[in-house]
Amino acid sequence: MAKKYNICLDVGGTKVLGAVFNEKDKLVCKIKRRSTEKGNSSENIEEVIIEVTRLLIQKANIKKSQINAISAGVPGIINSATGVVVFTPNLPWRNYDLKSAIEKEFGAKFYLGNDVNVGVLGEFEYGAAKGYKNVVGLFVGTGVGGGLILNKKLFVGNEFMAGECGHMIVDENGPECGCGNRGCLETFSSKKGMAKYIKGEMVKGRSSMMGEYIDDNGVFKSKYLKAAVEAGDKVALEAIDRACHYLAVGAGSLISALSPDCVVFGGGVMEALGDLFMEKILAEVDKYAMPSIRPHVDLKKASLGDYSNIYGSLALIKQAEKGKK
Amino acid sequence: MAKKYNICLDVGGTKVLGAVFNEKDKLVCKIKRRSTEKGNSSENIEEVIIEVTRLLIQKANIKKSQINAISAGVPGIINSATGVVVFTPNLPWRNYDLKSAIEKEFGAKFYLGNDVNVGVLGEFEYGAAKGYKNVVGLFVGTGVGGGLILNKKLFVGNEFMAGECGHMIVDENGPECGCGNRGCLETFSSKKGMAKYIKGEMVKGRSSMMGEYIDDNGVFKSKYLKAAVEAGDKVALEAIDRACHYLAVGAGSLISALSPDCVVFGGGVMEALGDLFMEKILAEVDKYAMPSIRPHVDLKKASLGDYSNIYGSLALIKQAEKGKK
Repeated sequence: MAKKYNICLDVGGTKVLGAVFNEKDKLVCKIKRRSTEKGNSSENIEEVIIEVTRLLIQKANIKKSQINAISAGVPGIINSATGVVVFTPNLPWRNYDLKSAIEKEFGAKFYLGNDVNVGVLGEFEYGAAKGYKNVVGLFVGTGVGGGLILNKKLFVGNEFMAGECGHMIVDENGPECGCGNRGCLETFSSKKGMAKYIKGEMVKGRSSMMGEYIDDNGVFKSKYLKAAVEAGDKVALEAIDRACHYLAVGAGSLISALSPDCVVFGGGVMEALGDLFMEKILAEVDKYAMPSIRPHVDLKKASLGDYSNIYGSLALIKQAEKGKK
Repeated sequence: MAKKYNICLDVGGTKVLGAVFNEKDKLVCKIKRRSTEKGNSSENIEEVIIEVTRLLIQKANIKKSQINAISAGVPGIINSATGVVVFTPNLPWRNYDLKSAIEKEFGAKFYLGNDVNVGVLGEFEYGAAKGYKNVVGLFVGTGVGGGLILNKKLFVGNEFMAGECGHMIVDENGPECGCGNRGCLETFSSKKGMAKYIKGEMVKGRSSMMGEYIDDNGVFKSKYLKAAVEAGDKVALEAIDRACHYLAVGAGSLISALSPDCVVFGGGVMEALGDLFMEKILAEVDKYAMPSIRPHVDLKKASLGDYSNIYGSLALIKQAEKGKK
């Protein structure tokens, strides 16, 4: 029986998304399982991945022997050469050989990469950044992640750590960042950064409907930010203006340094509020990108939504198989 | 007679430096000619290049037929694929096919690239950044130029414009930049930026010995800045502190975004005052580079001095010949 199906996973801090693709890269079926929060050891989360993969096999009505390869985008530092998860900020893996574990279970090749890197790769191979050569991706979610496609290949840098564009300094006197520094892009433009601004304004006595949607972790669901915008919530709109302003500053600096032909903005916030964000970013980026380079760059909203990571995982398989030929 | 000599040139706004290398990459002789200022057309400067090349052939006591290749670093946007000088800010070339002109004159291959890119390539192949894989170069002179070696190759980006790291925004409220934007790294850290600061302080009534050394173009010779430091000139020292502070901010952001294994600081100012600059940059960079990435990067002073460009030109020849094999 031909090994013609690829199983692609998006492993998040709180959920595992998965999809099965046939030999023509057509999506056969998909599944979403919210359970990584329960995992408190490397093995537990590995079990969730195995469970989702089994459910996908079942749902697609295929056999284990028909799987060509499995792949995943994982939040953290991934040694994409060895498949070892070096470090994950929100999951308990430390130098864990996830590749061997999954390959042993399913008898198929397993490829993995950093989630945002993989998401940008997805947009490059199948989404808004298709056809470009040098792509900078900025993904706005709980934090701000980055990914770089340079000369049509994912650039991972030294120790597989490239793409931390959310930690570029956009205002050295800005808020403290979780990384330990001050004024990183993500202190302004991430959900956490926006929530912190809104809470700060509320402490000053201003009101915002976002108050009840910001959870104990200082995050909110993007749909509530959208609702606040639609309700004309001033504080929420200021937080968005601030987020977009600094995304323009960060994108401008990256355009000057790298001369990409495309900057793609993705992630949950862009999925919910992309048009508004793009409008505001585009209105400002000319002030911060070198004028001689700016006209040669397209700024785009990601087009694969929640599936940029899944398609990026598919691209990981394709790139690996292409490399072997 | 074997074609065993390479002629490497550094074409500046005001001078052409040149050297002859033998087949073992040993420097046979060198020459410095200050005359590009006189040139007021593409052809005139081409004549200076041809003249310097002829003088080098004469000084090395070799024949034209013994030249393997000629190469040059040129300030501006260079299409390194075609050898066309697209644009130069301080020289009159516009879409000029310099490659054909020089190859016709000497009957040898001619390679060229952007001067700072070529300088960083020189440090990577023969200087302080030798042995690294991903190198960010920041060259401090009249402006602040950049160059990127990624996966051991010069990265030129879209339209050959990558590496304009001097135009990354380090303080959006900073001084106006020649590029049209505000708060670019080079408004603080270049000679022009330092001179502007010093002049501004003098207008406020403070004194600095640099006053008499800053010329009508708002630039000074690096040796005078060194003399001012040695004399304990407070305003000059402040200008240097400010320059180094923002070099640390810019380098920090580049470290987070690219995860290089080396950042190399070069250019005329670093040649004259490198140890002082490095000390000050190293004291600050930890605040601006992502803490998980910072320990994996070496920060180095360029080691080839005035010759990083000449050696980079030699590297251009080597890379081109390697590419052909």
